[in-house]
Amino acid sequence: MTTDGTETAGAGTYERFENRVERIRNVGNAAGILRWDQEVVMPEAGTPARAKQLSTLSSIGHELLTAEETGALLEALEGADLEDGKRAVVRELRREYDRATSVPQQLVEEISETTSNAHPRWKAARAEDDFETFAPTLEKLVDLKREYADHVDPDADPYAVLFAEYEPYIDLEAAATILAELREELVPLIEAISESEADLETDAFSGEFDADTQEAVCRDVLDELGYDWDRGRLDTAPHPFSSGTQFDARVTTRFDESDLLGSITSTIHEFGHANYTIGLPDEGYGTPLGEARDLSVHESQSRLWENHVGRSRPFWERFLPAIHDRFPATESVTPGDAYESANQVYEDNLVRVEADELTYHLHIVIRFEIERDLIRGDLEVREVPEVWNDKYEQYLGIRPETDAEGCLQDIHWSHGSFGYFPTYSLGSVLAAQLFAAVENEVGDLEERIREGEFDDLNGWLRENVHRHGKRYTTPELIEEATGEAVTAEYFLEYVAEKYGELYDLEKY
Amino acid sequence: MTTDGTETAGAGTYERFENRVERIRNVGNAAGILRWDQEVVMPEAGTPARAKQLSTLSSIGHELLTAEETGALLEALEGADLEDGKRAVVRELRREYDRATSVPQQLVEEISETTSNAHPRWKAARAEDDFETFAPTLEKLVDLKREYADHVDPDADPYAVLFAEYEPYIDLEAAATILAELREELVPLIEAISESEADLETDAFSGEFDADTQEAVCRDVLDELGYDWDRGRLDTAPHPFSSGTQFDARVTTRFDESDLLGSITSTIHEFGHANYTIGLPDEGYGTPLGEARDLSVHESQSRLWENHVGRSRPFWERFLPAIHDRFPATESVTPGDAYESANQVYEDNLVRVEADELTYHLHIVIRFEIERDLIRGDLEVREVPEVWNDKYEQYLGIRPETDAEGCLQDIHWSHGSFGYFPTYSLGSVLAAQLFAAVENEVGDLEERIREGEFDDLNGWLRENVHRHGKRYTTPELIEEATGEAVTAEYFLEYVAEKYGELYDLEKY
Repeated sequence: MTTDGTETAGAGTYERFENRVERIRNVGNAAGILRWDQEVVMPEAGTPARAKQLSTLSSIGHELLTAEETGALLEALEGADLEDGKRAVVRELRREYDRATSVPQQLVEEISETTSNAHPRWKAARAEDDFETFAPTLEKLVDLKREYADHVDPDADPYAVLFAEYEPYIDLEAAATILAELREELVPLIEAISESEADLETDAFSGEFDADTQEAVCRDVLDELGYDWDRGRLDTAPHPFSSGTQFDARVTTRFDESDLLGSITSTIHEFGHANYTIGLPDEGYGTPLGEARDLSVHESQSRLWENHVGRSRPFWERFLPAIHDRFPATESVTPGDAYESANQVYEDNLVRVEADELTYHLHIVIRFEIERDLIRGDLEVREVPEVWNDKYEQYLGIRPETDAEGCLQDIHWSHGSFGYFPTYSLGSVLAAQLFAAVENEVGDLEERIREGEFDDLNGWLRENVHRHGKRYTTPELIEEATGEAVTAEYFLEYVAEKYGELYDLEKY
Repeated sequence: MTTDGTETAGAGTYERFENRVERIRNVGNAAGILRWDQEVVMPEAGTPARAKQLSTLSSIGHELLTAEETGALLEALEGADLEDGKRAVVRELRREYDRATSVPQQLVEEISETTSNAHPRWKAARAEDDFETFAPTLEKLVDLKREYADHVDPDADPYAVLFAEYEPYIDLEAAATILAELREELVPLIEAISESEADLETDAFSGEFDADTQEAVCRDVLDELGYDWDRGRLDTAPHPFSSGTQFDARVTTRFDESDLLGSITSTIHEFGHANYTIGLPDEGYGTPLGEARDLSVHESQSRLWENHVGRSRPFWERFLPAIHDRFPATESVTPGDAYESANQVYEDNLVRVEADELTYHLHIVIRFEIERDLIRGDLEVREVPEVWNDKYEQYLGIRPETDAEGCLQDIHWSHGSFGYFPTYSLGSVLAAQLFAAVENEVGDLEERIREGEFDDLNGWLRENVHRHGKRYTTPELIEEATGEAVTAEYFLEYVAEKYGELYDLEKY
């Protein structure tokens, strides 16, 4: 630094910056291990100490990020002539730095405290089906998050600011257009399905399936897909997730002994996340070049594997014998039965996490429209239950009878996470777009899936998505990989074809 | 702080100090979880990223400890009127601060780098039985650690300074006296044993014991001793250890399918460590008041449970039926057989980690005498193999034929750990002294062990040792608990009686 505290980029400036970034990332990755431990192996009484450890790591990470030195290094490097990779690292840290420094620490703490308290209140309100008791907390969270957005950018739409926390580079208008398209197309498609007289097999995965053998099946499926066990492991957790780094990306699942499908699709979903993480370049560890692009792209990887591979007909032709081996009672199930059971549409289902690949997106559209209006001040918290129920009736033709199975069902808002939901649908959209691009480039994948041959698919993903880390913004990454801007076209084509055939729909 | 940077103790000074200490401890405890994870569950490829995460946490902890602010707070509080507990926290942090600030960072890094490189060299030298290839590294480590000691206290015996890293409050002369007493008494006792014609049962635990059932036995034993499963768990690790905090103190063990005793005694040993940790006061978490006293006291807890309980005759009377249940092939083994097999003396054994409760201490005495002379400059590294072998001949009547089973067998010196070995023997000495104090106070424990009734024993340990954390120094703690200074008397009585009876020794 010069004597007035400003920094000009000289020899070693980037290296000092990179050291700082690596430090921040090592602290964050350590916290990731502590959270994995908490969900998977920590004994029950460990919570108070764990909360303190995580809080310390989080505040150390925050201090390292927001230190004056970080700002000085960023400024110096923004005026310097850097190669593309380094420029991308500076770009990503600038975003993080600006967000972290623009919001007063006191507000951050107030949000953190409010969400901590909100969680048990939300749980109790849901248990007692009593929206009223949660409403004041939700109002406070909406206010606080609006205030947060105002600090980040007083001139911007506050919902757009919050959405950008989760998806910084796809702009909200583009996302909103995609969600509107999904609504336009899926509402009539689901209507047609509920009127269809097609008689799908739905029971292929019902029965008695002990957890230990299910675990063996899940290990089979990870072997089949090519999970790199040297860099990962499989465990159980109450809410399945994947976490880690390219050196160590772990998968969790859970078992319902009366249903075999859930643990398999959940394992494949988390495999998609972990496989993306493992594909990030080793040499990028500790900087954004070795980190996954944002939530939509991450979700595109989990959904591509879960839906385009794991719910495909050739996959069940390939994998069913392994299930027959493990659970001889399933021997009469055919690949066709399995395919139909894995793809049935639950048009009467009110619960997002139990939704199928199709109705899922209407659950998202409803949440998106409501949270956007809440944050923009176009909707009052007390109106939420009615608006929620009306939208369910309008889009899905069903109406929740309680708020517990209505607007109280998700944890997200109690976390203060407004703007998160759309990334789920964007993930499906990107999954279809990427899958179409792979097929366009390497040829039809059906036969390869039937042969258990995933090298071409995964090789393409490694080459065109994984290895880039955060080098490109999301729109650049998708454009580079597929030659097109982000579009819902491929997803809509995919579901029209798949469900048109499954449900014998004339128009599709 | 005042304008000249000094601090006087005002309102909130102690609180600020405590916050800083808690931060340092949270970082250290997070690192502890990362190390547990690495030993127990981390996939193989995770090492490079884990090394970076641990190195960042270690340097953040070091920076927090050695910051000027820490020094200023310590100074202010040393002049303040504090209650005993707070004074103990200040005393402990002063020690840590002085050590950490007196050694130049460059030397710390050189030691860290040298030990990192030393480990694979030691491993290779041991594998090839080639002391010559390890000698230059060992020389460098001896020099660096001598230099380290000189920075900490240029006027002190450098070996005493290093010993105090592991055992800060028992002075080296007291420890040396105890080790000399052990040598004096144990050499003739072991000689008498090797001349004894007593015919001990030695095969009670030989056979075929599958690992899964051994694990069930180890869980039985933890249940039996009263391990608090809400605050712990049992896993396997290549080198069994225990780690954690009072909220979460975990145990590991390992299984040899041809030997049932090893996994049980190792589980009981680690239980002793974990049970001490769990007994630390919850409200002390994050400061020395909630932390275990040093290595000798920790080892006293593991050895008390392993040897005084787990290798006692009444314990086998109590626990053998559980083994008969799990391994029906053992049904002909009697409690007497089990007791004898668990206590046979291996007078021909050359390897410390395979030693029995008695010869173990001569292994330690030999290492202590050699490392002390190395650090003091009274012995050259190239002389180590011969001196080692001579001492084995002199104290144990056996002579290693190779350095692999001689002076290359232990990992400690390759870690730069000189001064660690004596704490193992001090642990046994303290275990016997504490056990005698319990019996003196609550009465003979034999019957209670036979009934599986451990509340009196553990209650006494909780009350007199565990709950104090680091409130007292080790000598104070032992004096408070037993009414006497640290002494080898009880250990020597205990082994003379136990082995005199087992081996039919007239004199004992």
